[in-house]
Amino acid sequence: MENSNNNKKWGFKANPDFNTTSDITIRGILMMLLSKLNKSDTRPVIPLGHGDPSAFPCFRTTQVAEDAIVDSLRSAKFNGYCTTVGIPSARSAVAEYLSLDLPNKLSPDDVFLTIGCAQAIQTMLTVLASPKANILLPKPGFPYYEAYAQSCNLEVRHFDLLPEKDWEVDLDAVEALADENTVAMVIINPGNPCGNVFTYQHLQKVAETAKKLGILVISDEVYDHLAFGKNPFVPMGVFGSVTPVVTLGSISKRWIVPGWRLGWLVVNDSNGILKEHGIIDCIAGYLNISPDPPTFIQGAIPDILGKTKDDFFVKIVSIIKEAANTCYEGIKDVPGVICPSKPEGSMFVMVKLDISVFEDIKDDVDFCVKLANEESVIILPGIGVGLKNWLRVTFAIEPSALEEGIKRLKAFCEKHSKKT
Amino acid sequence: MENSNNNKKWGFKANPDFNTTSDITIRGILMMLLSKLNKSDTRPVIPLGHGDPSAFPCFRTTQVAEDAIVDSLRSAKFNGYCTTVGIPSARSAVAEYLSLDLPNKLSPDDVFLTIGCAQAIQTMLTVLASPKANILLPKPGFPYYEAYAQSCNLEVRHFDLLPEKDWEVDLDAVEALADENTVAMVIINPGNPCGNVFTYQHLQKVAETAKKLGILVISDEVYDHLAFGKNPFVPMGVFGSVTPVVTLGSISKRWIVPGWRLGWLVVNDSNGILKEHGIIDCIAGYLNISPDPPTFIQGAIPDILGKTKDDFFVKIVSIIKEAANTCYEGIKDVPGVICPSKPEGSMFVMVKLDISVFEDIKDDVDFCVKLANEESVIILPGIGVGLKNWLRVTFAIEPSALEEGIKRLKAFCEKHSKKT
Ligand SMILES: Cc1ncc(COP(=O)(O)O)c(C=O)c1O
Ligand SMILES: Cc1ncc(COP(=O)(O)O)c(C=O)c1O
Repeated sequence: MENSNNNKKWGFKANPDFNTTSDITIRGILMMLLSKLNKSDTRPVIPLGHGDPSAFPCFRTTQVAEDAIVDSLRSAKFNGYCTTVGIPSARSAVAEYLSLDLPNKLSPDDVFLTIGCAQAIQTMLTVLASPKANILLPKPGFPYYEAYAQSCNLEVRHFDLLPEKDWEVDLDAVEALADENTVAMVIINPGNPCGNVFTYQHLQKVAETAKKLGILVISDEVYDHLAFGKNPFVPMGVFGSVTPVVTLGSISKRWIVPGWRLGWLVVNDSNGILKEHGIIDCIAGYLNISPDPPTFIQGAIPDILGKTKDDFFVKIVSIIKEAANTCYEGIKDVPGVICPSKPEGSMFVMVKLDISVFEDIKDDVDFCVKLANEESVIILPGIGVGLKNWLRVTFAIEPSALEEGIKRLKAFCEKHSKKT
Repeated sequence: MENSNNNKKWGFKANPDFNTTSDITIRGILMMLLSKLNKSDTRPVIPLGHGDPSAFPCFRTTQVAEDAIVDSLRSAKFNGYCTTVGIPSARSAVAEYLSLDLPNKLSPDDVFLTIGCAQAIQTMLTVLASPKANILLPKPGFPYYEAYAQSCNLEVRHFDLLPEKDWEVDLDAVEALADENTVAMVIINPGNPCGNVFTYQHLQKVAETAKKLGILVISDEVYDHLAFGKNPFVPMGVFGSVTPVVTLGSISKRWIVPGWRLGWLVVNDSNGILKEHGIIDCIAGYLNISPDPPTFIQGAIPDILGKTKDDFFVKIVSIIKEAANTCYEGIKDVPGVICPSKPEGSMFVMVKLDISVFEDIKDDVDFCVKLANEESVIILPGIGVGLKNWLRVTFAIEPSALEEGIKRLKAFCEKHSKKT
């Protein structure tokens, strides 16, 4: 009787925009690699694939942040619904925190709280997705941009980041790509996946190019302050009087709490151009029907941003810097893997495969699948971030695990090298 | 120099789907009413407009729930990113919790965790929004459905809830509205805005009608177990073998923590029809690029659902029941306001305005604006939930405030009644 249901016609079908679990996301590729692990290998898996060091004891967040959440929760003042743009105290705290590094003071009204930086990305892309619009994205980049853009029908055009120039933006390419329907360009600084940090001078050129083209700059600064090389971190908002800048960020990386899902979208636009063009109202309109970050996490933001001690930041950055070094030096000895520049920020480095060195490796995906299977090391194939036959290596993991991972990577590459 | 920016052509414009802050939402209307308050009135504002009693001390959530969050956070096991459908322990806990009231045991795979019930709504509407599809929504209803449906281009058709039949669904209207492009019908039980609770027999008829039409039933049970009249709460999932049922819920209402933003989308479909039609994959695909609830809140779900003592639920329901009674009895004495049935569930009741009774009230919006201005009482005009010249009154507030609110409502109506 019950099975007779299966014979009748049902009226629903799945929205074709989402009809399979998307595997262009980093998560999708990493899941695939995890499925290739050899279960009989008793060694621990070395996760060099994704940027989430929160599971390692040395990267545990500061107690200040945990206490802030507990206090907010126990106060019972933040159990209710909140306004869709974020509670005033949290907006003020973000404005003050970011203003420390800016020439102009941000107003709380410039700040919109989001569910991690990811929802800030989703918001900006949706807001800009008017008919025929296109957006310029970096290659290599962070593939959630492509995924979100596709889901809201925003056309994507890619400009290169230049490995031979410390991964600077190819600004000539940006000018060549842009047309009258171009709305914005995205930069990620410090860089995922390249581990670079843009100079003040380069950011200024980015701003001037954007101004010339009449587009806005979306600056993804989710790795803000994770800079440990020659270039200090400079927020793009510094150039908010040259061209409109929207800064996206979160507490995910600097506080090592990506699971807390608290981020922001911040408008740096001293000439009020975005307001004039209805973009600010549109952001508010979109957030009005979008999910909100939990109120008690918002309630903790003033303490998290205001009370975290410098020694916590210094400790985290020094562990990551050390790890970047270990990774860079270790990879020098690995045959077939070339690192064009030493990582100076974020948690990642891009390295190039010289496929001709190997006997039986077809491409980056083949490399990563065999590496997972034979050595229980997970690395993201470059194709996941837009560059075939490169790898993105995450170095922000427990130092001993990183060393072990590099050792296995070396053994793997030696084993698969052509014997001459 | 800086102002010269304003003279040049900028390439971006706002997405026309979100170009103003939508005011069809309840939040939008309530904000408008708040702006009408008379600031020189020193009496406290009485908020009978929205369903969030969390600010009142008598509605404070159970310590079990707070402790569960603190323990999850302090464990430092839930600081990282999670899978997009929810962590396994939380999915299992929801499956077990809901299975208590179902004939078949749910599997953890039937459960998708969401950012409150609101994101569960958004997910189902988006998933079903294939080209030409339409969905049947109740009138009066919960206007987020209309707002989300609009944003994903899903056509909406309305069936009536019948005040003279305890707000049951007009199933003849459902049959008349449905065509080959109808994908689903939505019910809200216990009812917002009507405060009704559907009988087992009526839900069975709903299921049979849906089966006949070949559509799925989306059952919004965000007010589950908040039932205190003649009908016990029956989950629609009981009929998941008759027609596919998707249940939407959250901890927002039963635990009085809407700001914690933890909900679920649960598939009750013992014949596997939704899986066969690709709907399950599409849900996963959509969630793959959607924001996730914070991991440490998910980590608390097993304890919140498993350890909350019955006495907490009993206390909350008895306060709300008492309040419903106060509200119903009080309104009997208010001229021009008619209550067709005594509220038996959720936190709301719909009452009808007899506009002819009043001297100078044009309609429900005019009524609510003047009431806010003259008496500092906020009530939602029926237009906000689809019924002109009705009011939705929230009774789930501190009892003394409710009594004061009814008193002011009465004074207001007497003052504005025609003098005969
Ligand atoms: C460049 C970039 N932007 C945004 C995000 C998302 O950040 P969040 O965890 O705050 O949502 C990530 C996460 O890895 C990222 O690498
Ligand atoms: C009928 C109905 N569905 C869904 C929701 C949203 O619930 P949540 O707070 O869990 O997102 C509400 C909130 O008031 C509601 O009344």
